[in-house]
Amino acid sequence: MCNYSFSSIYMKTVAIIAIGDELLNGFTVDTNSHWLKECLWNFSLSISRAVNIPDNERLIISELEFCIDNNIDYIFISGGLGPTHDDITKHTLSSFFKLPIVINDDHLTKLKKKFTKKKNESGMDSSAQSMLSSQAEILDNFKPIPNEIGTALGMSGEYANSRFFVLPGVPKEYKNMITNHIIPYYISNEPISNPSITIKTTGITESYLFNMIKEIIYNNNKKFKFSILPHFTGVNIRIIQIDNNFCLDDTKKEILKKIGKFHYGYNNDSLNKVVSKLMLKHKLTISIAESCTGGLISKQLTDNPGSSNFIVGGVIAYSNKIKNKILHVPESILKKYGAVSSKVAEIMANNVANLYETDIGLSITGIAGPTGGSDDKPIGLYYVGIFIKGQFFSEMYQSKINDRKINREISSMAALNLLRLKIKENYE
Amino acid sequence: MCNYSFSSIYMKTVAIIAIGDELLNGFTVDTNSHWLKECLWNFSLSISRAVNIPDNERLIISELEFCIDNNIDYIFISGGLGPTHDDITKHTLSSFFKLPIVINDDHLTKLKKKFTKKKNESGMDSSAQSMLSSQAEILDNFKPIPNEIGTALGMSGEYANSRFFVLPGVPKEYKNMITNHIIPYYISNEPISNPSITIKTTGITESYLFNMIKEIIYNNNKKFKFSILPHFTGVNIRIIQIDNNFCLDDTKKEILKKIGKFHYGYNNDSLNKVVSKLMLKHKLTISIAESCTGGLISKQLTDNPGSSNFIVGGVIAYSNKIKNKILHVPESILKKYGAVSSKVAEIMANNVANLYETDIGLSITGIAGPTGGSDDKPIGLYYVGIFIKGQFFSEMYQSKINDRKINREISSMAALNLLRLKIKENYE
Repeated sequence: MCNYSFSSIYMKTVAIIAIGDELLNGFTVDTNSHWLKECLWNFSLSISRAVNIPDNERLIISELEFCIDNNIDYIFISGGLGPTHDDITKHTLSSFFKLPIVINDDHLTKLKKKFTKKKNESGMDSSAQSMLSSQAEILDNFKPIPNEIGTALGMSGEYANSRFFVLPGVPKEYKNMITNHIIPYYISNEPISNPSITIKTTGITESYLFNMIKEIIYNNNKKFKFSILPHFTGVNIRIIQIDNNFCLDDTKKEILKKIGKFHYGYNNDSLNKVVSKLMLKHKLTISIAESCTGGLISKQLTDNPGSSNFIVGGVIAYSNKIKNKILHVPESILKKYGAVSSKVAEIMANNVANLYETDIGLSITGIAGPTGGSDDKPIGLYYVGIFIKGQFFSEMYQSKINDRKINREISSMAALNLLRLKIKENYE
Repeated sequence: MCNYSFSSIYMKTVAIIAIGDELLNGFTVDTNSHWLKECLWNFSLSISRAVNIPDNERLIISELEFCIDNNIDYIFISGGLGPTHDDITKHTLSSFFKLPIVINDDHLTKLKKKFTKKKNESGMDSSAQSMLSSQAEILDNFKPIPNEIGTALGMSGEYANSRFFVLPGVPKEYKNMITNHIIPYYISNEPISNPSITIKTTGITESYLFNMIKEIIYNNNKKFKFSILPHFTGVNIRIIQIDNNFCLDDTKKEILKKIGKFHYGYNNDSLNKVVSKLMLKHKLTISIAESCTGGLISKQLTDNPGSSNFIVGGVIAYSNKIKNKILHVPESILKKYGAVSSKVAEIMANNVANLYETDIGLSITGIAGPTGGSDDKPIGLYYVGIFIKGQFFSEMYQSKINDRKINREISSMAALNLLRLKIKENYE
């Protein structure tokens, strides 16, 4: 990532501490911490550290001391609240803060009720009952944070200059406590972030994009912080306002003028959502004929609720037999041009739209790798075909990567982007 | 996660430090650290911490002091090696270690060659040339780690009792340096991990699975460490040997005997790979008819190279019109039983196999949510149909989650698992 200027506003600091052996041994991905980072982005808070540590008393205490020594304002601790012997978080905090552990009666009553129900339903092991009270434990002086979804009670309290939040590691419970309890009661009074926007692009590399907009960046880097963030499916430009005398919107417009068709959305927009909205707006229907992507484009277009309003269905024509038998690509064409060709892509798009009786037909044929390439048709070559408003087109793309997964992702993005551009061209 | 016994063998310790503002503000997911944890799992090393910190000199130095005070043996530092002004890692390390920065001539020569080539190809900005030497910087006394893929040179050196590795944050470069340079030269002499195995299951919840095998766990928890790790698509059982006098294989067999059909593979096996292997082994071909999963099952079956040897193609029948027109499900049946029914699943499976002339037809129809449910047919209800060896079957499943993404994932797993069981039943 390249940042082109700096903000120096004072912000309260945050530490995110996720505890659990399973997070360190490569077995479980810590998705909670990333989610929390995104969630806190709306507030003017500075995240100083995000740490994974094992279920080890000494290492947990060292980390707590570190955060307190560094005057971290908000410390989120998660994991190790379960009922088994290696869940040591609460007892470690108790000895560190020198606060006894007490039982929260309200929570215990709720758990007992829940447990009795469950027991009747599924014949749950009765030894579990003895574990219940451990799930209602809380440090004396700390306030409970309710857990409407799972069993372990959360809690919050202050020590030195820091406020601590102690949460279960189960993602659904963690997110629920933060969204419905911690943010409303403890964080919502914090100042909100400086105005910012993320401009999302696809179909252009980082260095080309930078060349297009570098003058704008250099002329404005006292007013805004610019970050250019490349992903293999597209490059994002993030702009954060650092001087309130200038308007983010003007600079945004300047950039959009330069980058034109490569821009597809903002912030959390995904290309498939943008395309779906366009289709709903113009009341269009679509069918898809996929070869190399094997269902990925259809899967992406049906990811969002409401997609049954525009996607009628598709054909996965992984073999030439199906391209011929179901999509009626003539054998002579397959022989003359090969399955990976603009001709075949166009016939696939045209014929799937006819067969499925849709406004638009979208097709793709290519070579994802790791084998199947030749000098003529190397790995990473693919053609996207589109039938729209009675006409068909195709475009050729060439990725230089021999990575099956990446090539399938890139080529799906290219297909969705061509679809977006053609709808705009024909209907807007 | 529940661990049922502990290992107390001494192991060298590891810290993983990823540096970069973009890792803290929720914009970029730190996939490198997780990858490294998995990679180091093969060796008898204990990962003490994995940390994300921003491009901030004070915070970087605090973290280094922390690691050194805690006698961490191997410290992996990544990010902030780029040429822009916020890439401060090397300069921070230089002032912390009190080692001057020098230019590595070999690397600079290579970069100059590469740069000249690139310039001619794409008209790269000439101002970039002045950045080149920063990419060849190295701490005096540290050894270079070559970067065959990108520009920034890596390095390794010792300080206090710790060995430091300094790496670029770009995932491809990071992984290449670790795999091809750090592991062979610095880590490969470490003792390998205790024998271990992960048993992968699907179609059963954590508590049911635990009940099935808890006696084995209690009888063996001095010899092995057991971990039960739930994911929404399946539960994994990890067994690590802690006493060399006992054989992991016997305990593994005992567990397999108890869990039977729920077990589909080991370690890094994915269900789609296991199913693909079965199909190749028995020289079977398959076609798929998907409704609610909208292409996800076909996408998963074509994820792996070589899938064109068994998957011929599929029909995405997202609308009833296509179920009728392409898959020839009679309108009367759709009307009488509804699209989400065992009858329709069976006809879809049978007819896609006929139409595509394959040995097996696999189908799915269901309600992924968030809307479309009713009292009769709630969200999360789905039917998987299969045509195999001239017969067809279907199974009903009911997920209790109203989460479109999770329901699509769970139902794809259920479909692939039914496919696995039916192939085994009919061909093994």
